[in-house]
Amino acid sequence: MVAFARDFDPQPFHLDDAAAGASFFGRLIASGWYTAALTMRMLTDAQLDISGGLIGAGTESLRWPTPLVPGDTIHLRADVLDVRPSRSRPEIGIVRVRLQTLRDDGSAVQEMIASLVVPRR
Amino acid sequence: MVAFARDFDPQPFHLDDAAAGASFFGRLIASGWYTAALTMRMLTDAQLDISGGLIGAGTESLRWPTPLVPGDTIHLRADVLDVRPSRSRPEIGIVRVRLQTLRDDGSAVQEMIASLVVPRR
Repeated sequence: MVAFARDFDPQPFHLDDAAAGASFFGRLIASGWYTAALTMRMLTDAQLDISGGLIGAGTESLRWPTPLVPGDTIHLRADVLDVRPSRSRPEIGIVRVRLQTLRDDGSAVQEMIASLVVPRR
Repeated sequence: MVAFARDFDPQPFHLDDAAAGASFFGRLIASGWYTAALTMRMLTDAQLDISGGLIGAGTESLRWPTPLVPGDTIHLRADVLDVRPSRSRPEIGIVRVRLQTLRDDGSAVQEMIASLVVPRR
């Protein structure tokens, strides 16, 4: 968590316990982008049977309701919201998924709605 | 780019030239989350004078119009769209920014609109 922050989000509240204690958050927290990266890893590990792989076109919303902190245990919940042909490219389809990154008590560290690109039959 | 993919997005088109050549993309590309992480790093390096640090509440949109590929040189364009008091928490404000991650020719590898949390006077 701290190594990721050192590379990509080197702010005091992501790097150092003492500096984090004096910050807005009052404690060391993960970069939201680390939470996003872990979420992607859980999604690839889930080995969903999506043709062509997990190709993200983007997200229409991405929120970090509470920050990920040391000691948290998280899992991923994925719900397919809808599946439709692309308007501009007939050979592909768009799968909208809600991805919730949750602690065991159900509280969320990340919630997003993402669009995946898939080849059509 | 490949090291990031190995940790967080281990799919063939992010890891290996030959496998990537046979994929949807036809070549090795960066994980979108790597593009997002690099964008965050450019934002912290910019040392914007935002009180309390760069605290993201989330994004209302995040898109990867074209994938980042080896050899690309990118920079960040940040535009403040608006600044308003939080509705639920009077001690903080919300700064909406459009963040465009661009190649030198102006083509975008990422576009997002993000909300930052800032303390109020």
